[in-house]
Amino acid sequence: MHAPETTMRPAMRPYLSETSRFAAGQDTPRDFLERCLAAIDEWEPKIGAFVCLNRDGARAAADRATARWRKGAPLSPIDGMPVGVKDIIETVDMPTGQGSPLFAGAQTGRDAAAVAALRAAGAVVVGKTVTTEFAATFPGATRNPWDPSRTPGGSSSGSAAAVGAGLLPGALGTQVIGSTIRPASYCGCYGVKPTFGAINRGGSYDYLSQSSTGTIAATLAEAWQLAYEMAFRVGGDPGFVGLTGPASAPAAEKPRSVAFLETIGWKVASAGAKRAMEEGIKRIAATGVMVLTRQNDRRVAAVEDAIAQARERSLDINAWESRWPLNTYRDRDASKLSPHALGRLKQAEAMTLDDYRRLLEQRAKVRALYAELAADVHATMSLSAPAAAPVGLESTGDPACTVHTSFLGIPSISLPVFRDEGLPLGLQVAGFENRDAQAFAVAAFLEKALA
Amino acid sequence: MHAPETTMRPAMRPYLSETSRFAAGQDTPRDFLERCLAAIDEWEPKIGAFVCLNRDGARAAADRATARWRKGAPLSPIDGMPVGVKDIIETVDMPTGQGSPLFAGAQTGRDAAAVAALRAAGAVVVGKTVTTEFAATFPGATRNPWDPSRTPGGSSSGSAAAVGAGLLPGALGTQVIGSTIRPASYCGCYGVKPTFGAINRGGSYDYLSQSSTGTIAATLAEAWQLAYEMAFRVGGDPGFVGLTGPASAPAAEKPRSVAFLETIGWKVASAGAKRAMEEGIKRIAATGVMVLTRQNDRRVAAVEDAIAQARERSLDINAWESRWPLNTYRDRDASKLSPHALGRLKQAEAMTLDDYRRLLEQRAKVRALYAELAADVHATMSLSAPAAAPVGLESTGDPACTVHTSFLGIPSISLPVFRDEGLPLGLQVAGFENRDAQAFAVAAFLEKALA
Repeated sequence: MHAPETTMRPAMRPYLSETSRFAAGQDTPRDFLERCLAAIDEWEPKIGAFVCLNRDGARAAADRATARWRKGAPLSPIDGMPVGVKDIIETVDMPTGQGSPLFAGAQTGRDAAAVAALRAAGAVVVGKTVTTEFAATFPGATRNPWDPSRTPGGSSSGSAAAVGAGLLPGALGTQVIGSTIRPASYCGCYGVKPTFGAINRGGSYDYLSQSSTGTIAATLAEAWQLAYEMAFRVGGDPGFVGLTGPASAPAAEKPRSVAFLETIGWKVASAGAKRAMEEGIKRIAATGVMVLTRQNDRRVAAVEDAIAQARERSLDINAWESRWPLNTYRDRDASKLSPHALGRLKQAEAMTLDDYRRLLEQRAKVRALYAELAADVHATMSLSAPAAAPVGLESTGDPACTVHTSFLGIPSISLPVFRDEGLPLGLQVAGFENRDAQAFAVAAFLEKALA
Repeated sequence: MHAPETTMRPAMRPYLSETSRFAAGQDTPRDFLERCLAAIDEWEPKIGAFVCLNRDGARAAADRATARWRKGAPLSPIDGMPVGVKDIIETVDMPTGQGSPLFAGAQTGRDAAAVAALRAAGAVVVGKTVTTEFAATFPGATRNPWDPSRTPGGSSSGSAAAVGAGLLPGALGTQVIGSTIRPASYCGCYGVKPTFGAINRGGSYDYLSQSSTGTIAATLAEAWQLAYEMAFRVGGDPGFVGLTGPASAPAAEKPRSVAFLETIGWKVASAGAKRAMEEGIKRIAATGVMVLTRQNDRRVAAVEDAIAQARERSLDINAWESRWPLNTYRDRDASKLSPHALGRLKQAEAMTLDDYRRLLEQRAKVRALYAELAADVHATMSLSAPAAAPVGLESTGDPACTVHTSFLGIPSISLPVFRDEGLPLGLQVAGFENRDAQAFAVAAFLEKALA
């Protein structure tokens, strides 16, 4: 175990709780932004969370928000909130590089749906945050603010590092395997991957059939608020009902029962992570919530068995779905693709459409089995990662604990309530398709129970 | 009625039937391409089907195909086929302008999935074809090759004009309301809009929940082949099974019964179109195929009633789904949007996510009702358009006859078998979700019956 190399202690920077001070004239969104920019000046050289920043644009947007709060007419609860945008999501004022030298500096001439919605709600887009290559496995250079010798997780690396370090109260992430929940866990912030299709992915270079745009934030309430404000304005993916739930974060609600899913991550979990989870289960049970497990419930055991292949199946599904665009990128300049990307393309080109169809069938069956659990429990929970962020930047860590939520298309939330090696570790609370609000309500209860 | 202003008669240019001559050394893909380029030189000044051409790239690709055919090792049956790509679909060697001054000349650095697949199959990408603004209603300047005073239809205007005039044997179209079937009808070529999700839309600026990439071609067989070669290589949209069916065009198959759907287009259809359709029904019935209609079948009448609102509902769905990106385009430069686009955005901004959810529910109900017809008939048929192409370029014509197939997400095919005012008019053959091959087999039978 390496000792943390920084003397600064990361501390998150909530926004929603500050807005009453804007209304009272004791603070302004511009001043809030300046504190964020000062924190960026301090931290960015150490952690490298950003691909680029638009300080001038952010200041202008914060001034407009300041004027609206002063008039008592904010556009939304997040009016003036400084946010970061994962660099696979298009922004009209900054290039979208997708973590690839093929697209470094690429201007696309528009905002993605999520970004257009955030701006319409008054949010202040501060910068583009580092992602792995094409939001897959080849890491960027971002470091973990809790210990710069460790990965921040990925692929939403910069978003989680920036929020975890308190550089921003919120940021956009995406997840197809574990790319939002795991970095949120490693960096000690809240992470949300909503139901598949819940937030419009238009203008995000992110097409996979398990991929979701999500939020990373300083509190559970702002993770919800950011997601809500986006869906409210631009809906979910075309053809989907979009995020369903109230206009502000669902209140904590005590569930009758929850299921603890070990997932394939349990076998490789650290002693500290297991201890934290087991202690957490005890404290949750002590509140009177029934905790079903594979040991005491046959249906939970059946779900555990069914999701045991989620990682392999997801990687196969992603490979086929990445055949394009990796083929056109390779044809353009193979030397600018990582060995990871070239390997994934090779895997894809060895697959057939029929192979892919079988995978979709298998996935649909597992989804149906999981959905039946909704009759018994209000949520399922598990570790967000098998351990604290691992040392080294050559990998973004193990998605074993969270891949099932992407495979299932269900909402999942990482709560920064555990510690392992003195570093952050998340509790993952997962729900059921299009019942994101219920998952939030349970998560809010569990967070209090574990506080 | 205006008399045709051109002295040239459009004649389509099939490719698949020529390839046996390549194998025999009597012709080459390069020579075929040169004949296409000569036809382009002759016609393009009159009809304006292309936004840009890549003659050098096409010649180089045709030479490679020539070498493969010479060796007896073509990459696919379409190896060497010159094709056009609708200008909302990305190409690495040509800009993608989306029919909008906002994106004129925009380079995206990659091929769309469909284009990457076509190139992998050996197809020769000759140029980008004119589309309406963002593939919606504001027309480009393309003219109908049968009569340059008339619209070619839209939004796949250039693709249909180029194929109809024999400049290319095939081209890519897309359809969300009527954008493939209607221009195919107006320009006298074959048009296919497959089941929703059947051809991967990755890299097409075309996200709507009713939108499909399709093919426009000189024969039914090559319309299938183009679609098949794409799905085989890059699948359908992520999460969808992709086009299902055989590796070459399904053989003609006599159906026991088909349904004739009047659609809302019947009431506004021209006398000539009605006469052609009624005559067609008689000839089809004379082959022993039972033709169900709203007059003789209760379930057909129920479907007719259910799809009567398809146009209004589709326009509402499209409006909400176009909220983004039109909002970010307006914010960038409203003066570069057409009044059509600004009006659609205004409509969208008056809608709520709940409005949209209700539309999705309504659509799902109508889809379920239509799907039940599969127990009774092998296909449904209707006019592809209420009449021949109308005079004037200020509108791309009436989608009344074809909007239901997009609303329903079902495969539909336009066969150039009718005439109205001495100009082309299509018979539309529509099938059932993911049974594209069956729709093709029926279409092939009906084409013969009406020959």
